[in-house]
Amino acid sequence: MASERGNDSTVINMPEPKANGKGKAAMASSTTKVTQPPNPKAAGGYKKGIAIFDFILRLCAIGAALGATATMGTTDQTLPFFTQFFQFQAEYDDFPVFMFFVVANAIVSAYLVLSLPFSIVCIIRPHAAGPRLLLVTLDTVMMALTMAAAAAAASIVYLAHSGNPNANWFPICQQFGDFCQSTSGAVVASFISAALFIILIVLSAFALKRN
Amino acid sequence: MASERGNDSTVINMPEPKANGKGKAAMASSTTKVTQPPNPKAAGGYKKGIAIFDFILRLCAIGAALGATATMGTTDQTLPFFTQFFQFQAEYDDFPVFMFFVVANAIVSAYLVLSLPFSIVCIIRPHAAGPRLLLVTLDTVMMALTMAAAAAAASIVYLAHSGNPNANWFPICQQFGDFCQSTSGAVVASFISAALFIILIVLSAFALKRN
Repeated sequence: MASERGNDSTVINMPEPKANGKGKAAMASSTTKVTQPPNPKAAGGYKKGIAIFDFILRLCAIGAALGATATMGTTDQTLPFFTQFFQFQAEYDDFPVFMFFVVANAIVSAYLVLSLPFSIVCIIRPHAAGPRLLLVTLDTVMMALTMAAAAAAASIVYLAHSGNPNANWFPICQQFGDFCQSTSGAVVASFISAALFIILIVLSAFALKRN
Repeated sequence: MASERGNDSTVINMPEPKANGKGKAAMASSTTKVTQPPNPKAAGGYKKGIAIFDFILRLCAIGAALGATATMGTTDQTLPFFTQFFQFQAEYDDFPVFMFFVVANAIVSAYLVLSLPFSIVCIIRPHAAGPRLLLVTLDTVMMALTMAAAAAAASIVYLAHSGNPNANWFPICQQFGDFCQSTSGAVVASFISAALFIILIVLSAFALKRN
């Protein structure tokens, strides 16, 4: 950005920048001398802003993912009537898809908590590409996991609401209304978490852009 | 890369690089004069390699997405026996989730075909950040769509195979074996397409990295 906006000529001097291997990005920017800088702090500030926003979005995504896990994991409804042999009860682990949902959202919550230190590193060193690349790679995988869990659970929740007369699958939400409501809430929370991941990935791409 | 590996000092002269707005990244690299270049073509070649690989992966993803759409869209099985009032038939549009699957995969296929020109632009100009950012943003959204369609269809296919005795949903794959097989194939193709999208996003992130 600085070299593209310079009107006359831009000279960048870097005396022996290979000494520091770990913090080379931060060091390269600190030892760079740019003549006629149009706005030397703009690029760093812009990247730092993205990194702070990234951290806040991660906190929101933790809330959404933990909420989805907890709501789905505690879903349990017992109907007030029973026969001699059977008590009508609906729990999340009656449906394998909902168990996958709980496990996937728990993994995503744990990942998000563990990713916070890397996000803080990105705030401190906005120009470091290593932690950012790690975050964007894992974010993409976790986004896929969240989206898969949310969509799979959503299709079962839809079936529980509407049923499918062609396959003789009847809706169960007339009987298990509370169960359906809380699973629907968990699915919505998980979709919110997936949407936050999409924003995180796009933000990371913009932060990685050379400027 | 070039400036970080330089041993003594690196001087980059850019006389009035703002004249050409469109191809500024390519022009900036062509007017750059680096003294003692250790490997001046390494960064460009590395990015060009990523761009070519990106193009090939897109072609594979088109195949997977089109295959998923076509397989699911032509799924139709009529059982060889019927009653006076009813003929037993299973089509993809008996299940709303499978219709969503077909629509989503068709959208993704169309997007992938339309994204090929941008991928070619990235091969020609490996340093241009604009088309790359566009591609990574849209890839992320399309990956979410593919994954949602694949996971939702997978949960219905699983239900068709195994049923759920807790909800009185009985498996239908004993009767509709061919239907189940072709829908399972379509789901697998869609998951392959989603996995290719993950690789595409990560590759784009590495291509965006400042070097």
